[in-house]
Amino acid sequence: MTMQEPQILVSEVGPRDGLQSIQTVMPTEAKKRWIAAQAAAGCREIEVGSFVPATIIPQLADTAEIVEFARTIPELTVAVLVPNLKGAENAIAAGAHKISIPFSVSETHSRKNVRRDHDQMVEEVRRIAERVADVDAGKRPHFEAGLSTAFGCTLEGPIDEDLVVRSAVRLIEAGAAEVGLSDTTGYANPAQVTRLIRKVRRAVGDERLTGVHLHNTRGLGLANALAALDEGITTLDSSLGGIGGCPFAPGASGNIVTEDLVFMLEAMGYNTGIDIDKLLAVRTILRDALPDEPLYGFTPDAGLPLGFAEQR
Amino acid sequence: MTMQEPQILVSEVGPRDGLQSIQTVMPTEAKKRWIAAQAAAGCREIEVGSFVPATIIPQLADTAEIVEFARTIPELTVAVLVPNLKGAENAIAAGAHKISIPFSVSETHSRKNVRRDHDQMVEEVRRIAERVADVDAGKRPHFEAGLSTAFGCTLEGPIDEDLVVRSAVRLIEAGAAEVGLSDTTGYANPAQVTRLIRKVRRAVGDERLTGVHLHNTRGLGLANALAALDEGITTLDSSLGGIGGCPFAPGASGNIVTEDLVFMLEAMGYNTGIDIDKLLAVRTILRDALPDEPLYGFTPDAGLPLGFAEQR
Repeated sequence: MTMQEPQILVSEVGPRDGLQSIQTVMPTEAKKRWIAAQAAAGCREIEVGSFVPATIIPQLADTAEIVEFARTIPELTVAVLVPNLKGAENAIAAGAHKISIPFSVSETHSRKNVRRDHDQMVEEVRRIAERVADVDAGKRPHFEAGLSTAFGCTLEGPIDEDLVVRSAVRLIEAGAAEVGLSDTTGYANPAQVTRLIRKVRRAVGDERLTGVHLHNTRGLGLANALAALDEGITTLDSSLGGIGGCPFAPGASGNIVTEDLVFMLEAMGYNTGIDIDKLLAVRTILRDALPDEPLYGFTPDAGLPLGFAEQR
Repeated sequence: MTMQEPQILVSEVGPRDGLQSIQTVMPTEAKKRWIAAQAAAGCREIEVGSFVPATIIPQLADTAEIVEFARTIPELTVAVLVPNLKGAENAIAAGAHKISIPFSVSETHSRKNVRRDHDQMVEEVRRIAERVADVDAGKRPHFEAGLSTAFGCTLEGPIDEDLVVRSAVRLIEAGAAEVGLSDTTGYANPAQVTRLIRKVRRAVGDERLTGVHLHNTRGLGLANALAALDEGITTLDSSLGGIGGCPFAPGASGNIVTEDLVFMLEAMGYNTGIDIDKLLAVRTILRDALPDEPLYGFTPDAGLPLGFAEQR
């Protein structure tokens, strides 16, 4: 098998989105083992942490150290989440390759979550974009704004699709290189995924929307991912063992399970660059480091189909 | 809301496929309550049992009584599974509206499961078709052959797609009114679902393949259902609470969960004719009658999205 660029980038968000949602603080060394093992399994992008105050999310207090470590892994895009300009400055200082800021399309959620309305958030994005532009071209991180609650909000309910489109336009105009669509609440359905991707792409251009962050809260995660793939989306977020992403109940994971997503993609004939056997083995690191946390995933329980390896 | 024909028929297989896979024998009266409640929630087709010897599947020994009861429910299509001519005769005598016989495309599986090879199975289908044709037109059941292990076999591994197509042709020629595609083993992926539906329909005609039976063993059930919908499939099998269908491990249901499927379809704007709140309430009957069996489903755990009812 020759090495080739993955057709679909599975972006692992477990070390950030997963770990911030659970009580246990994973030791820094375990995070490093996890990230190294998953990169060795072929994952090319990992969101390794978030530059938020340690008082708010103590689980991610070691993000700077984790970024420094992850940057030593060849061919790995080291992504981080930032809530504001201060976080972005820390991310730039640490040398993150990719910076994402969540922009909640539900203004109610935005005010409650980050105490900022839309105008304030757009202004923050503009400031970050300026700071990013000041970085030397060779070291400049990719700066993306994620449209969270784009598919519905637990506070507001349905979200106006035109507001999603207008928000996307404002964020791109403010200087974000790209927007993403996030199903923060697990409200999305495949028809809506198709529709929103088309609408946003029509407004900002295909190359400004290449990734989606979907949840599996109501079991539709992979169906929604399929709808996104059919629209030409090339980056899909997921979490190893499905950890994090606000699970509501046992068995109901929030994030899409990386193992199941990679199985679906590889079975469909997409090249993800990921060795699924090695990926499944990474679960051991999670299980050892988080013995009290449930790990989700259907494919890990059922195993790969007979003859699957030979067909790859 | 005016009554209209469902665009997508969600065919409930729990009382057959679900109950035959679990140890507990559900009392006949509980089965009747379940079937009545689910029909009242708007389900128009329920596979209520199987005419197999009670020595083999004691859980379904009361199928004749259940069919008799289910036939009294207006607008409900009463479906049963039969393994052979003898079962079909019993089904006809009981007055089932729809009779399905599984034909395992994996001949190894067929020999092991029903001790018959393909030629013998085709001959059995021919005999059943003749018997069905003898029934008065007004009372004649719909006779379908399900292509089980069509997407892969736990004994043989990958299944030749041309063999699936040839088998479909043989079964139609033998007199089955329709064939179905069954992912018995949970091996299917969306690309394969699309491809196989197209190939089989090209060979036998669109109207001879309108339904698929998918499993969620590797978490791809709803993604596979979406692929089938996109090809124009109008009947999807599923099981309330995801019971049955050979689950491998806790959390890993075999059958697609009816509640999640109906949520996806209704959220996408498809009319299923099913009241999802009433459907979710039917779980209580299952929980009471099968207190030791796990019930699956993401939507039941997470609840419906805020504002979902108002959007319907």
